[in-house]
Amino acid sequence: MSQSTDKIEDLIALMARLPGLGPRSARRAVLHLIRKRGILLAPLADTLQEVAATARECLNCGNVGTSDICDICEDARRANGILCVVEDVADLWAMERAGVFKGRYHVLGGTLSALDGVGPDELRIPQLVTRVQAEEITEVILALNATIDGQTTVHYIADQLENRVELTSLAQGVPIGGELDYLDDGTITAAMNARKKL
Amino acid sequence: MSQSTDKIEDLIALMARLPGLGPRSARRAVLHLIRKRGILLAPLADTLQEVAATARECLNCGNVGTSDICDICEDARRANGILCVVEDVADLWAMERAGVFKGRYHVLGGTLSALDGVGPDELRIPQLVTRVQAEEITEVILALNATIDGQTTVHYIADQLENRVELTSLAQGVPIGGELDYLDDGTITAAMNARKKL
Repeated sequence: MSQSTDKIEDLIALMARLPGLGPRSARRAVLHLIRKRGILLAPLADTLQEVAATARECLNCGNVGTSDICDICEDARRANGILCVVEDVADLWAMERAGVFKGRYHVLGGTLSALDGVGPDELRIPQLVTRVQAEEITEVILALNATIDGQTTVHYIADQLENRVELTSLAQGVPIGGELDYLDDGTITAAMNARKKL
Repeated sequence: MSQSTDKIEDLIALMARLPGLGPRSARRAVLHLIRKRGILLAPLADTLQEVAATARECLNCGNVGTSDICDICEDARRANGILCVVEDVADLWAMERAGVFKGRYHVLGGTLSALDGVGPDELRIPQLVTRVQAEEITEVILALNATIDGQTTVHYIADQLENRVELTSLAQGVPIGGELDYLDDGTITAAMNARKKL
């Protein structure tokens, strides 16, 4: 577009790459930002700069945060000995919004997928096996999505950890084909409370 | 959310204030940014920082750009003597995408609205009257949205400029109640080509 300068065009192109925004909504968002440049654009630029400089994955569990070990792993008030395994950070956040789980997490970073060539070593499965021993875990809750790949991953992890630890999975309430991040808090709570032994 | 640190929460809250994003899509966008922090988050932070430092409204026409006088006002290849008046910058961008107009623009920054207390001095109407004289304008195209407030503004400007300049408005093709930024290029071109005298 000849009517705006290069940097504004660059910004529109970058914003259009965010999930949920296309070229048109990116243009609207950028105009909105420029109109509110004092109260929105400047704080957003500063905050993005800080997050870009500090955001990283927790070395222990894979959650995102701004230090090497995340707030949940550092939190002394949370229960040790019980691990909740989730596919990705969005699922961890969904669990936290439900507020029903007070133990520790382990974020796999995806699911096993023959089609996409994702094997156990592409996920944090070896680290999970190590943590179960090192942290004296007694229960592992496999809170993966109720999809084919999610359930394949559940079975693979169950094989790896069999006889070492009690394995449970979210049960009642997770709809077939559903994804955790889209569930309401009540459904997540029901599924957590009714978790069953594998 | 206790699971992420303050800066990430701040970023989600700021992103949720963009048009088209809510709290959930802001969370997804931020996670996406953190996952792609090398190729997307860092460039976006840098670009936002630059735009925040340089974006401003053109002193002449009200378009946004990164210098005091915008690229369109500076462009020697565009026709002088013909002004296209639009409500806001999104409308100017829509006109430019259609590519049918090669003159200069004047961005009002809104429409007259008794309900919202917007009078002529809140818009760039006095500057428009000044420009018409100073730049020896022969035609003013009033390309405002086909809404009540848009048409009220057309009539007010027509009164101000009567007998000084030829006044035209976009005609055929603009649907009743429609807004320029949502029209396809073909409709805008048809409306521009069939513009009629007031």
